[in-house]
Amino acid sequence: MHRIAQIGAGRMGSVHLGNAAANPRLDLALLVDPRPDAGEIAASVGARVADLDGVLGDASIEGVIVASSTDTHLTLVRACLAAGKAVFCEKPLDLDLAALTAAEAELSQPKAPLFVAFNRHFDPHFRALRAKLKSGEVGDLETLQIVNHDPAAPPAHFIPTSGGLFKDFTIHDFDMAGWLMPDPFVEIFAWASCLVDPAIAEAGDVDTARTLLRDARGRICVISNTRRSGCGYDQRIEAFGSAGMAVAGDVAQDAVQVWREAGAVSAPLYPGFMTRYAEAYRGEMDHFADILAGEAEPETAYAASVASLALAEAAARSVATGAPVRL
Amino acid sequence: MHRIAQIGAGRMGSVHLGNAAANPRLDLALLVDPRPDAGEIAASVGARVADLDGVLGDASIEGVIVASSTDTHLTLVRACLAAGKAVFCEKPLDLDLAALTAAEAELSQPKAPLFVAFNRHFDPHFRALRAKLKSGEVGDLETLQIVNHDPAAPPAHFIPTSGGLFKDFTIHDFDMAGWLMPDPFVEIFAWASCLVDPAIAEAGDVDTARTLLRDARGRICVISNTRRSGCGYDQRIEAFGSAGMAVAGDVAQDAVQVWREAGAVSAPLYPGFMTRYAEAYRGEMDHFADILAGEAEPETAYAASVASLALAEAAARSVATGAPVRL
Amino acid sequence: MHRIAQIGAGRMGSVHLGNAAANPRLDLALLVDPRPDAGEIAASVGARVADLDGVLGDASIEGVIVASSTDTHLTLVRACLAAGKAVFCEKPLDLDLAALTAAEAELSQPKAPLFVAFNRHFDPHFRALRAKLKSGEVGDLETLQIVNHDPAAPPAHFIPTSGGLFKDFTIHDFDMAGWLMPDPFVEIFAWASCLVDPAIAEAGDVDTARTLLRDARGRICVISNTRRSGCGYDQRIEAFGSAGMAVAGDVAQDAVQVWREAGAVSAPLYPGFMTRYAEAYRGEMDHFADILAGEAEPETAYAASVASLALAEAAARSVATGAPVRL
Amino acid sequence: MHRIAQIGAGRMGSVHLGNAAANPRLDLALLVDPRPDAGEIAASVGARVADLDGVLGDASIEGVIVASSTDTHLTLVRACLAAGKAVFCEKPLDLDLAALTAAEAELSQPKAPLFVAFNRHFDPHFRALRAKLKSGEVGDLETLQIVNHDPAAPPAHFIPTSGGLFKDFTIHDFDMAGWLMPDPFVEIFAWASCLVDPAIAEAGDVDTARTLLRDARGRICVISNTRRSGCGYDQRIEAFGSAGMAVAGDVAQDAVQVWREAGAVSAPLYPGFMTRYAEAYRGEMDHFADILAGEAEPETAYAASVASLALAEAAARSVATGAPVRL
Repeated sequence: MHRIAQIGAGRMGSVHLGNAAANPRLDLALLVDPRPDAGEIAASVGARVADLDGVLGDASIEGVIVASSTDTHLTLVRACLAAGKAVFCEKPLDLDLAALTAAEAELSQPKAPLFVAFNRHFDPHFRALRAKLKSGEVGDLETLQIVNHDPAAPPAHFIPTSGGLFKDFTIHDFDMAGWLMPDPFVEIFAWASCLVDPAIAEAGDVDTARTLLRDARGRICVISNTRRSGCGYDQRIEAFGSAGMAVAGDVAQDAVQVWREAGAVSAPLYPGFMTRYAEAYRGEMDHFADILAGEAEPETAYAASVASLALAEAAARSVATGAPVRL
Repeated sequence: MHRIAQIGAGRMGSVHLGNAAANPRLDLALLVDPRPDAGEIAASVGARVADLDGVLGDASIEGVIVASSTDTHLTLVRACLAAGKAVFCEKPLDLDLAALTAAEAELSQPKAPLFVAFNRHFDPHFRALRAKLKSGEVGDLETLQIVNHDPAAPPAHFIPTSGGLFKDFTIHDFDMAGWLMPDPFVEIFAWASCLVDPAIAEAGDVDTARTLLRDARGRICVISNTRRSGCGYDQRIEAFGSAGMAVAGDVAQDAVQVWREAGAVSAPLYPGFMTRYAEAYRGEMDHFADILAGEAEPETAYAASVASLALAEAAARSVATGAPVRL
Repeated sequence: MHRIAQIGAGRMGSVHLGNAAANPRLDLALLVDPRPDAGEIAASVGARVADLDGVLGDASIEGVIVASSTDTHLTLVRACLAAGKAVFCEKPLDLDLAALTAAEAELSQPKAPLFVAFNRHFDPHFRALRAKLKSGEVGDLETLQIVNHDPAAPPAHFIPTSGGLFKDFTIHDFDMAGWLMPDPFVEIFAWASCLVDPAIAEAGDVDTARTLLRDARGRICVISNTRRSGCGYDQRIEAFGSAGMAVAGDVAQDAVQVWREAGAVSAPLYPGFMTRYAEAYRGEMDHFADILAGEAEPETAYAASVASLALAEAAARSVATGAPVRL
Repeated sequence: MHRIAQIGAGRMGSVHLGNAAANPRLDLALLVDPRPDAGEIAASVGARVADLDGVLGDASIEGVIVASSTDTHLTLVRACLAAGKAVFCEKPLDLDLAALTAAEAELSQPKAPLFVAFNRHFDPHFRALRAKLKSGEVGDLETLQIVNHDPAAPPAHFIPTSGGLFKDFTIHDFDMAGWLMPDPFVEIFAWASCLVDPAIAEAGDVDTARTLLRDARGRICVISNTRRSGCGYDQRIEAFGSAGMAVAGDVAQDAVQVWREAGAVSAPLYPGFMTRYAEAYRGEMDHFADILAGEAEPETAYAASVASLALAEAAARSVATGAPVRL
């Protein structure tokens, strides 16, 4: 068992907390969070509350899960790494590409393992898709279609601190695109609109986008985004190869269908990322246990964070200029 | 082009009429039907009205489609065969097994080809299923599940002349069972209930049944019937082999799905046999053209009719006695 | 947290052990098992080894998971109940109906809660199916089709102590049939064959069966069993109602499809009950935590065990006599 | 019955010939084609050979199917219209936008009905999709995804006279985009590559493309094209609305699935447009019969041809310049 601490017990934090507690290879001992009920939360998973120094100074703590608010990630991650703790950082490392690249020396060759958790990497369906691509069953990958549609738009007050659609949402798709396509992208083009909620436009953001990426050979990736699908959390990838197509389809909540005269109704899609990617979050935690055991290198780390963020910034630039952007 | 006549232009007759007219190898010249508008109907497909003697005495007529009411089939078929005409007889040849076996000498080795049209044989989906079984892709067939569910119960006044559920409806499944399973059945068992419409029970019939057939090796076929599915015309077959399962699934009316928060709704099933088996009826007519051209023997003839009818009578006996019946 | 013990750490036992250890509401403290590595196994989930008396005499232990071999269930369950421990007993309570009914007084009104774990009850797909039936979306349930096909036959040496196909395997389907259909069954009929492995016949058992159940109103349930599907663990239920059909379909291992010229290949079914019902086993453990917390009555207990076992014995009798059996 | 003639009996011509002959409302009397076996072909559908003047001068001929080579379409269509014949012209009217717009006066308000046949309009699946969009079941249409993937690349010698990918192939998708989305497009952007066959690049064309269209409100349509799918003829449309998604999925050749341990294999997709759109071609002919009967205006005519061709030219310009093109 590897003794670990967690910083932050908010929405995503509580997911990681539960997974860490249930993981038989991890012993979640300390929780850092200023909220009044932090003690209760910690107790519910057999941990106790500590402050940051208590975590950093406790030699028995091998790793730290950083699940606090995004604007604190970079500082906390650096502190933990400096203290020699392996880090599980909920993505993103930071929303500012310049700040991130400024820390390159420290983060790209960190003193302790740095795992930046991108949930799609650990989704069993997308992993199975990637395995199919690697196996060559559909030949050489030529084009890719990523569908990432949220069930419903976030409240408008969330927009200003979100980083905008591309950094907040499409970032996952940039991560998938780079993971699935073999070569680096050389150009990006995006169109984005506000079709869902005018308040999002007023807050300076968009809610609907199509983004194209291509590599030097002319392989193309299309990313489809909306903040409101009207049909749950629509998460699919289609990969078109020289010898066929591999598809990771949508996942319904159960295998029940009801047939009436009007047709057959299947179970609804998951209502959001917490349920759709529940298994992926468990997989992330298992990967962290592997890292702590020295059995794996972080599958997504500093480089993945920078690459995705750079694409997000370029996409926004393409929208602003109305022209493709060379990468 | 083979010159043919048709007897009967009722519900099924009009289907055959249209298919015969559209078939490029058939020249539908004569129609026999006493209804007042028979002339108009004939004209609409480029034919003219005749009486039975006119058909039988016309040497240019090579074949006759017998699509009159069931109680006239046997008499008309014998007359046509006696006149040397190839016959396409809408199933059944007759509802009375004794009457049918009494005519064995004449019908099992007929003077001209006798094709008794069982529509499932010509359905492309069931044909594809049979081809899969023949190919050995699922190993040796061991058990079979036939689902034949009607959309809605017929009016009660139809029941007395229908022959009852097994002769009128399950007859198609007995035909499929014998076509798909390799060995003769040795025993049958059936339970039947009236769950759909009490008027059917009052008319002496049942509307819901499960029938089991088995062969000498212990291979088992289950037939599932209801007169009212509540979800359209549910027509499926599952074949379980030693190396897997082959399924001919339901056919939706189109490939459109609508995804809402409550789930994905597929297109409805077909509302009945006229639409679901439209392609099968065209295939029957094409088979008749093959027979007239001397390119095929009738795929279903006297023997198939007798075999299915015998199973229907045995099923009814099993229901009456509450015990399995040896065949 | 409820402090519990477990007896038995074999194949099923290890599943329950892991789920108990991961359940945040349960504190698995003691393991009883004579195997040499029991100490290691216990340590891996934070427990220690004890003997039966140590469990029964430890007042802090609120509940016991009985996961030892089937022939010890009845004795151990009675001992635990006598000691006032709530019991989670892996099904079946016993393979002998007479022994079970002899213990009725003690087990049907036990001193402490007795939960006999039938995994299908806790499968999310079958639970969703039942909820659909209860909601009335498909009207009144009229007939039921349960498919329970094992991937591959067990080794022949397993057969003699298994209780035979109906008690060992179909028992789950009898449980589902009673759970899903509203009224008691009044008659049963079964045909069974040995088509998979002659060694099974030599051991006195069958490997392929179709079983029919009906209630007083004439509603019918068909159970389809084989020991070897050739296509993984095929677990489905179709429920036919007066207003449509509700289906709990097969569950593939992931949502990936590969499209080639020969067609689209979906992911394989699960290879067996350990993976297919992993979530159900977690659900069972959660239900036990509910019971210990006084928040639920055992969903399946003595009565469910007796009912399923009685149907299994009647099915075997029907096969032996070749006739339906009144219940 | 409306008496008609057909010009051209090549690959597409033979499809129209068969459909015209089988259509009960059409009397195909004359065939114009210089090939030596034209007489035989005509006879097989009950027609006879004529020359163009014979058709134009025959007052009994109400309509003409123009199915000759593309470069003759414009001349023949104008001659037929001038002679007062209704015209069914296999798309495209012409590959040259300037030539087409030069004939606007004559063709946009023709003396007789001019039907330019775009097959997707008459596909029952896409018609059902459009009906769903019109019904409002998925709210307001916001974005559209059109997948049009050919099974295999054409021989390179076909490329020079084809008009190129956008005019030859994507033209159908431009037609669908305009049909399904409510407002005119204001901008187009396309990337295209040669990934399938270098001979296509040598011939100056591309074989893989992604094209984006948007309207003034910011609604976006993505068109996905490849000349070689590796998995048959992949023809799908996904429409994303404010209240859900409507999808016209791929159509398999039959409803049979084979389940093995490796997964379930569905039937292959159709191998090409002749089979996949067989029903659409019959629908086109039926629409022509409606037009001849005065019961319908041509659903696709001059305006549709010009609109699609203009988008094809703009797409090619976007590829050439690497920038979006205002429309």
